[in-house]
Amino acid sequence: MAREERKDPPAGEATSAVEEVEVRGHIVDSLLLPKILDRILQMGGTFEIRECRIGSRRVDPSFARIAIRAGTAGELDAILGDLIEHGASPVNPEDARIEDADIAGAFPEGFYSTTNQRTQVRLVGRWVDVADQEMDCGIAVDAAARSARCVAMTDVTLGLPIVVGHAGVRVVPLERPRDSTLFGFMGSNVSSEKPKAVSLQAVADTIRAMRAEGKKVLLVGGPAIVHTGSAGHVARLIRDGWVQTLFAGNALATHDIEQALYGTSLGVSLTKGEAIEHGHEHHLRTINTIRRLGGIRPAVDAGVLTSGIMYECVRADVETVLAGSIRDDGPLPEVITDTMQAQARMRQALHGVGFAMMIATALHSIATGNLLPAWVKVVCVDINPATVTKLADRGTFQTVGLVTDVEPFLRSLATELSGEWRVASGE
Amino acid sequence: MAREERKDPPAGEATSAVEEVEVRGHIVDSLLLPKILDRILQMGGTFEIRECRIGSRRVDPSFARIAIRAGTAGELDAILGDLIEHGASPVNPEDARIEDADIAGAFPEGFYSTTNQRTQVRLVGRWVDVADQEMDCGIAVDAAARSARCVAMTDVTLGLPIVVGHAGVRVVPLERPRDSTLFGFMGSNVSSEKPKAVSLQAVADTIRAMRAEGKKVLLVGGPAIVHTGSAGHVARLIRDGWVQTLFAGNALATHDIEQALYGTSLGVSLTKGEAIEHGHEHHLRTINTIRRLGGIRPAVDAGVLTSGIMYECVRADVETVLAGSIRDDGPLPEVITDTMQAQARMRQALHGVGFAMMIATALHSIATGNLLPAWVKVVCVDINPATVTKLADRGTFQTVGLVTDVEPFLRSLATELSGEWRVASGE
Amino acid sequence: MAREERKDPPAGEATSAVEEVEVRGHIVDSLLLPKILDRILQMGGTFEIRECRIGSRRVDPSFARIAIRAGTAGELDAILGDLIEHGASPVNPEDARIEDADIAGAFPEGFYSTTNQRTQVRLVGRWVDVADQEMDCGIAVDAAARSARCVAMTDVTLGLPIVVGHAGVRVVPLERPRDSTLFGFMGSNVSSEKPKAVSLQAVADTIRAMRAEGKKVLLVGGPAIVHTGSAGHVARLIRDGWVQTLFAGNALATHDIEQALYGTSLGVSLTKGEAIEHGHEHHLRTINTIRRLGGIRPAVDAGVLTSGIMYECVRADVETVLAGSIRDDGPLPEVITDTMQAQARMRQALHGVGFAMMIATALHSIATGNLLPAWVKVVCVDINPATVTKLADRGTFQTVGLVTDVEPFLRSLATELSGEWRVASGE
Amino acid sequence: MAREERKDPPAGEATSAVEEVEVRGHIVDSLLLPKILDRILQMGGTFEIRECRIGSRRVDPSFARIAIRAGTAGELDAILGDLIEHGASPVNPEDARIEDADIAGAFPEGFYSTTNQRTQVRLVGRWVDVADQEMDCGIAVDAAARSARCVAMTDVTLGLPIVVGHAGVRVVPLERPRDSTLFGFMGSNVSSEKPKAVSLQAVADTIRAMRAEGKKVLLVGGPAIVHTGSAGHVARLIRDGWVQTLFAGNALATHDIEQALYGTSLGVSLTKGEAIEHGHEHHLRTINTIRRLGGIRPAVDAGVLTSGIMYECVRADVETVLAGSIRDDGPLPEVITDTMQAQARMRQALHGVGFAMMIATALHSIATGNLLPAWVKVVCVDINPATVTKLADRGTFQTVGLVTDVEPFLRSLATELSGEWRVASGE
Repeated sequence: MAREERKDPPAGEATSAVEEVEVRGHIVDSLLLPKILDRILQMGGTFEIRECRIGSRRVDPSFARIAIRAGTAGELDAILGDLIEHGASPVNPEDARIEDADIAGAFPEGFYSTTNQRTQVRLVGRWVDVADQEMDCGIAVDAAARSARCVAMTDVTLGLPIVVGHAGVRVVPLERPRDSTLFGFMGSNVSSEKPKAVSLQAVADTIRAMRAEGKKVLLVGGPAIVHTGSAGHVARLIRDGWVQTLFAGNALATHDIEQALYGTSLGVSLTKGEAIEHGHEHHLRTINTIRRLGGIRPAVDAGVLTSGIMYECVRADVETVLAGSIRDDGPLPEVITDTMQAQARMRQALHGVGFAMMIATALHSIATGNLLPAWVKVVCVDINPATVTKLADRGTFQTVGLVTDVEPFLRSLATELSGEWRVASGE
Repeated sequence: MAREERKDPPAGEATSAVEEVEVRGHIVDSLLLPKILDRILQMGGTFEIRECRIGSRRVDPSFARIAIRAGTAGELDAILGDLIEHGASPVNPEDARIEDADIAGAFPEGFYSTTNQRTQVRLVGRWVDVADQEMDCGIAVDAAARSARCVAMTDVTLGLPIVVGHAGVRVVPLERPRDSTLFGFMGSNVSSEKPKAVSLQAVADTIRAMRAEGKKVLLVGGPAIVHTGSAGHVARLIRDGWVQTLFAGNALATHDIEQALYGTSLGVSLTKGEAIEHGHEHHLRTINTIRRLGGIRPAVDAGVLTSGIMYECVRADVETVLAGSIRDDGPLPEVITDTMQAQARMRQALHGVGFAMMIATALHSIATGNLLPAWVKVVCVDINPATVTKLADRGTFQTVGLVTDVEPFLRSLATELSGEWRVASGE
Repeated sequence: MAREERKDPPAGEATSAVEEVEVRGHIVDSLLLPKILDRILQMGGTFEIRECRIGSRRVDPSFARIAIRAGTAGELDAILGDLIEHGASPVNPEDARIEDADIAGAFPEGFYSTTNQRTQVRLVGRWVDVADQEMDCGIAVDAAARSARCVAMTDVTLGLPIVVGHAGVRVVPLERPRDSTLFGFMGSNVSSEKPKAVSLQAVADTIRAMRAEGKKVLLVGGPAIVHTGSAGHVARLIRDGWVQTLFAGNALATHDIEQALYGTSLGVSLTKGEAIEHGHEHHLRTINTIRRLGGIRPAVDAGVLTSGIMYECVRADVETVLAGSIRDDGPLPEVITDTMQAQARMRQALHGVGFAMMIATALHSIATGNLLPAWVKVVCVDINPATVTKLADRGTFQTVGLVTDVEPFLRSLATELSGEWRVASGE
Repeated sequence: MAREERKDPPAGEATSAVEEVEVRGHIVDSLLLPKILDRILQMGGTFEIRECRIGSRRVDPSFARIAIRAGTAGELDAILGDLIEHGASPVNPEDARIEDADIAGAFPEGFYSTTNQRTQVRLVGRWVDVADQEMDCGIAVDAAARSARCVAMTDVTLGLPIVVGHAGVRVVPLERPRDSTLFGFMGSNVSSEKPKAVSLQAVADTIRAMRAEGKKVLLVGGPAIVHTGSAGHVARLIRDGWVQTLFAGNALATHDIEQALYGTSLGVSLTKGEAIEHGHEHHLRTINTIRRLGGIRPAVDAGVLTSGIMYECVRADVETVLAGSIRDDGPLPEVITDTMQAQARMRQALHGVGFAMMIATALHSIATGNLLPAWVKVVCVDINPATVTKLADRGTFQTVGLVTDVEPFLRSLATELSGEWRVASGE
């Protein structure tokens, strides 16, 4: 192979290694080309643009062929590895190199570390899509079946064939969406000073579109949903079929059930504002009660739990993953206390999800963000800009941050999606 | 006078000065007594509680008589001065000491520095209320007329009689409200994790109550009101008579007029979200246009300005003070560029104000807070907890902070106070 | 018992139940008395102060005997339960009521829910200290041995005798410290605008005092310690014996080891600032390397890991608990993935800890705060006021929040405690 | 001229207007080309790249010639105006169009609104640099002298010749710096989780470089400098010649002088931490004292003010602008209460400034940012990310934000620039 030869360069070119890559698509509009050129220079290489055709209209694809030169083959390899993640592909591709896992629970040295972007590996001369795309994994291949999939470190079994190095791997980065939806115009800017009604409308439209396409909507939620008085709005969204999957922790579930057990009227919410000193006790009694009954579903069956987010999840068969944390009291029987098991359950539940709303939780949002491929649309809603910024830093055009108060956001969303409050239903 | 004697103490008591103070009111419930005892100890004094009657029921007043001992008369004076601010009064009061201002624009040395609490001075044996209560002022007296008022440093004229020292001054601190209104239950806690619907309702109730009592409602607002798409909500509150006074700066007015001149439909707001790069130019052209017309009112009269906050203020004769800042472009002709003149105008406009809503501005809110007596109710609304905390630090039971997003807050407030959007009005 | 009788009141007093409580200590200075009176009124009761002796000097104890009246015995019980948590005790105490756990993993209904304050239960007429004090637990008793201890819900075994109701339980609240240390003057105020040198000095003094008393210092740390370039400071504190226990997660350990494996010089830190795009890959390779070696200690033994926080922990035999979270990649072999097991290990490791420094982590700090008794001093350091506020809300005089940047804080702390950087050591 | 003709297009091309622009420089690396193409499409135009030569190496300039087509001449004009701000210039340039101001204090309609980028206007066929570059101004020209300068709206006099429209104006945008200094690697990212020692070093290096070049260093500071105990560090930087210009408000000056007058030892700072309740009174007495003396310099001359920031400014003849705000008490005699006069003084004082440090003030920092041309390097230091973000949003490669605590930052900066604390000087 060409690159192997360069490891032993001719005398006259001792400090130099060259390889051509090509980039296709909306490479100017999506800022891909300048990014790639910039990376080459930053990593100590030089480039020569051997061919460059820029589309005249927005819909026209562009193309560039670039020769990259670096001091050593090692440096060149590092640059190529980097560019592959940005969507460049070598002009003369090789097959992916594969090595069998020599121990369980860890990759071979030099394993290819995945991103959340759509990825392909070259097996026996053919480009194959990688399944279960997820960042910070390895790629396991079944050469016979010409298939490949992302595999987490803990799931590596002895002898599993794993891709090593960057050769034979290419990434197909997302292009910036061209429409004027939420994801078209908002970019990853995080600011509390944006027209709020517009954002709300865009989220509602996205949810409707997802449901129309038959994709699932995921809600990742923190306990502030309950503290701010928004549990009723979320319960309504679930009841009306706008949420198919819920990721949360012990706290959200407990506070929600506490509200259901210890007071349903507005007056009680008021009192909670006043007599906050005893929140902890109700909280613990709630967990105790549910544990005594054997869990949330038994509590619904026993007629003890009759309203709220968790109640509606049971009734609507929403796929719910309650993941444990070291902050938990109790916890509720449904909480998965082992974090690796919880991750595995979340991974599974993400199949078919087209849109994720992450609301008022840094822990669960980041955990979910780690598992999601880049092309799943995400909106992160929090009143704290720091939380929103962390999520939006995933750096995909598909993740949008809204710095806003969750209660009015959820109230408006429920009203928008489910119509005006029905007086008859007593809410 | 007793204290004068102590300045020359008998030999046997050389290091000690004593004076009795008394405290009345809800001194236990309002934490006054422990605070006072604590201050005495912190400032190096000791105390003896000579009498203490604590009311058995909430409505019963309590009473305590406390002897304070300090090492020197000077130390004792410092302690007394401090306690007076907390509402204690000397058992054997003297008249206030008065000194004529020896230069204009400054107080005599040793002047009494005011708080924002209700204050009285003793003139010729009679306690007289201080008018125009404001913190960080001096007290000017007219002994003949037995009257006193707060006076700012810049307004001191040569020869003006000014109170010096703490003798003959007493403060009547606000008591904690006992009802379950916003100001009853929220205290000065600042948190984004509170039941939001409750707070909103409480603000609306307060505004209705103020209007029923014939008191004015003041809005102190920043430009984020416009950025977040809330100008329409505020315009509506003004049109419907819920705001009598507006304090703002060049930025709020300019952005509001910019919205009126360069686009009134939602579509335009959307576009603004997109094409934010030219915000500055519209902004400057707006100011230029208004300056060419001679001001906001002429622009309304000329039919150029036909909607928005400033338009409604002109139409409803809302008393508006636009105060200048060094950040200003232009500014608009109505902006008072001299900050001392602006303060004077704000001071004047505060007469009759019973409730102040401070929304999305630190600068104007703090400036207004400095001018307000402690008994005017204040709600400070901002998505940034730091801003809310600064305001809430005024330390009165009458100031409440809401950490929330201003757009949904104002939308809900307008809906609550002015009823549902009227389709006929085209909004 | 008196209270039982009240459940069947005489005809003439049908709507009323009375019981006397007493409060002792610095009840005025510590704001206890007004708080208690306030609670009674808030919860719908009335009171009569039957006796009240307030100490004249700061060191003198005070005493109050208060008769509480409520509409029903149930309401009275609720009030008493509340007051007990604030430090009041019934004048005529009963023994604690005990019920055997009827199922494993849950308390009997009506269990006494603990606080983090020093607590005593009355067994066979004698007040007994509760061991292992921790909030949100139950109290298990061994009546024969006259002993009691806090027990977490998950640890309840079938038949374990558990305290139910508030009778026979009393809380001894912490008093406000009277000295001028960090914990004396700072209170729970959270602000970034405080004299920083003073706070730093106070933390250093506290650590020195703890070590002099033979108590352990706990560091609870987040990954921002490494991101901000502070790993070297912490490593130094550990090496010099200022930290005995470390609570952290997979992220801190991984980032620290990544720094050790992928670059030790300042130049590399600089590069990291630049080439941040590949952080995730180093991160994952680091975990993979350590997993291949079998863990952190094996990596030290193998000579692979030779610097940093985790290296120093191994060398100094610091008790380390790495608790798992659903955000984790890998994780490192030492990470305890089950959150309940991690809690149990943390609980154990807290024995002997006199001071906890919580730095740049909300998750681990709150989890640790949940396990700590109120009398362990805590300082919470974070640049984000929201995190500090959450911790400081524990509401004890022993918890102090510092809003500051962790790197200069840790640098100064290391310099203060360990002396100037020694040139000879090559740092 | 070509464009005039297009206003009356031939029948066959009624809906179309075309014009060529060219872009030169590091147009790929600096993201200029994609930005320009993107803007054309966003504004409804289409483009054809007629020529495109991309430099092969980093130092090579690139060139592109682009034909832009829009529906109407008006639309084309809008696009051209936009592109000019991004650095494109028409291939066939016209002279700038000039109109005399028809009223004082406002521009003619259609005036060219300036950016903070280096700008040139074409006068009688020659490109002329615009002096006094400042955003949100107009351009006044002296055609005879072939000179042009930025002029603020308030400074427009009747008959002043003002540039209108975009023709004959071109902008020379800053290129991204290529070195590894603070401004090279940090970009405009705002995060508290960055290696702090690196940033500090870079700021110190920049200051040293500026002084070596004979450029002035400007400090824009807020009162938190004093609250956090950093006044001594700043005083030292001034004394040692590292600051030539100071922009601040009444608050910084007053708190600094208050510290000088009411306590100089660390012990007093400690006490201030405790007895914060009387801060306001010292504050007011400080202002009163300085007003009685006639100002800060008289107070220094009288031997009353003998330390602190303001003292060192007087001694070192630092050009100081204290700008008024409506929050001010007093104010100090040196404070310029008229905001437009203050702006004028700041504008003047900015001549020769090569580096601006903006520390712990939003108001003064934004005001200064408005006046600064894009090529002056700016570092904004604040513990609140929101403030830093607002400043960094100026969108120039020359503005860097540091989210950190100002006290340790200033302490380290003073130590780095001025050497270790000298014991002999008694500090």
